[in-house]
Amino acid sequence: MIDVAFLDPVQEGIRRVEKRMLGQADGLHPELSAALRQLFDAGGKRIRVGITLLMGRLLHADPSDLITLASGIELLHTATLVHDDLIDGALIRRGTPTLNASWSPAATVLTGDYIFARAAQLAAETDSVPIMTLFSETLAIIVNGEINQMFGKRLMIDQPAYEQRIYAKTGSLFETACKSAAMLSTHDGTTWEHARVYGRQVGMAFQIVDDILDFTGEQETVGKPVASDLRQGLVTLPAILYQDLGGDAALLHSVVQGQASEGQISCLVEAIRTGGAIQASMQVAEDFIESGLQALANFPDCLEKQSLESLARFIVQRRN
Amino acid sequence: MIDVAFLDPVQEGIRRVEKRMLGQADGLHPELSAALRQLFDAGGKRIRVGITLLMGRLLHADPSDLITLASGIELLHTATLVHDDLIDGALIRRGTPTLNASWSPAATVLTGDYIFARAAQLAAETDSVPIMTLFSETLAIIVNGEINQMFGKRLMIDQPAYEQRIYAKTGSLFETACKSAAMLSTHDGTTWEHARVYGRQVGMAFQIVDDILDFTGEQETVGKPVASDLRQGLVTLPAILYQDLGGDAALLHSVVQGQASEGQISCLVEAIRTGGAIQASMQVAEDFIESGLQALANFPDCLEKQSLESLARFIVQRRN
Repeated sequence: MIDVAFLDPVQEGIRRVEKRMLGQADGLHPELSAALRQLFDAGGKRIRVGITLLMGRLLHADPSDLITLASGIELLHTATLVHDDLIDGALIRRGTPTLNASWSPAATVLTGDYIFARAAQLAAETDSVPIMTLFSETLAIIVNGEINQMFGKRLMIDQPAYEQRIYAKTGSLFETACKSAAMLSTHDGTTWEHARVYGRQVGMAFQIVDDILDFTGEQETVGKPVASDLRQGLVTLPAILYQDLGGDAALLHSVVQGQASEGQISCLVEAIRTGGAIQASMQVAEDFIESGLQALANFPDCLEKQSLESLARFIVQRRN
Repeated sequence: MIDVAFLDPVQEGIRRVEKRMLGQADGLHPELSAALRQLFDAGGKRIRVGITLLMGRLLHADPSDLITLASGIELLHTATLVHDDLIDGALIRRGTPTLNASWSPAATVLTGDYIFARAAQLAAETDSVPIMTLFSETLAIIVNGEINQMFGKRLMIDQPAYEQRIYAKTGSLFETACKSAAMLSTHDGTTWEHARVYGRQVGMAFQIVDDILDFTGEQETVGKPVASDLRQGLVTLPAILYQDLGGDAALLHSVVQGQASEGQISCLVEAIRTGGAIQASMQVAEDFIESGLQALANFPDCLEKQSLESLARFIVQRRN
């Protein structure tokens, strides 16, 4: 959980969500229970929980339904991470071992499936067909995006294709978090739309900053090697803008295709880190935040609105 | 699809469901589309589709919603098979290569996830919160059952534990197929309950017969080695009743624990095949069918009711 003032109005709610998530681990096979508890305890920023709760409170959602919804959103996120780590063969996430590292692949597949099922059950508990529909659509978007990303490994992409990819990966769930919080609160479609745009743009910026930090972060902070995406042949915005800004395209392509030496990779990473590509990428993230804040400006002033403004600004200031 | 007279009233509907399933493969990454088409074309008995359509027609469900529901049921089934084959490392199902055989594990995980998402979307299209809730509960039951089965490998179990396992594996989805078809048709809880019991008992019998066929079938027909469950340390009803009827418990336990020679395995399989365990298992299946037919007897006489009676009787007569 991030210890920042803008989450103050919902800290109590975040704790209730974490308790609700842990409750999903009860009454199961002891090994599964333990694995789920480890996953749910691992924490993380809970930024999706925070944004859901703030948007719901801003729009006067029923408090109990809001906790259920935010728990469903975080479970959906957790389930995709579990399968993601299996697919990437990742053994470490945020400096702690992944489920994949301590558990068989079979158990990891099933644990992810189980969390999907519980996310769907929580969505169902909101008693809203549109929210349940949105959850299932979002899952389809996320998974289709992962499949496209898998087939797109070691291929160059341009900025529009990159934005499509990060929408599927991150933008769509932030969008669903905010739109479904609005759906809990009102039947007004215009409000839904403002909430949706705010969530989408903040999510897009969040992923861009993640992709920037993969280049600029230190291994100890990020919990994985510097430029791990690029090393795996995954092209993100800093690499795209490096090329657009006249960088060494031949070098980039050979790294992307996995044909470069370690020395060449270090050289490219250094060029991306110190050239204008990082600043240009950050500008793209800031533009998304600006557009999200414009959507948010349609809402009446209140503490939660201020918090959502701070949350958006925090996204482009965070350093890990 | 099984070519049997009792499915005549719904053959057209089964074709519409198959078309609907194939439609889920449109507009995706070409490789994913092709994989989904291969999966959906592979056929199988479509018995879950048939039972859903017959129950819905018997209770006068809206025809279009019923096609949507039956498609969702079959997709949920297909998704669990895809992850199941990955978990078992199975390369062949029903004599044709599984997705797992031709596709990377990562792609297989994501393909299964995608099909789960589409199943949830179809459930959502019925516009019924109780049906969507039932879908998500069923997924949780199936997955929890698979996890229990995974941890229960190479351990003896008794008949009640076996029945719990096959309820999770098969009974629950047949139950959901029939109960959700009833939910589409009426608000009467007693009708839901009769439909649920019919579906559950038929599903239980279906799995018992599957487990019997694993012993009695020929490799060519079943598409896998004789007694493949037992070889993998998975105890099913014929093995349980073999022991209950005074069979060689020490031999059985050593086979279950993977400590027996090929000769000992053959000897045990022969003893199970020729002793009374198969007949005793079939009697358990027949008792489930009888109890399902009693639930069905509460419904008014009509063509679909006769078909559901025939379907139930077919379950305990089928030979592959």
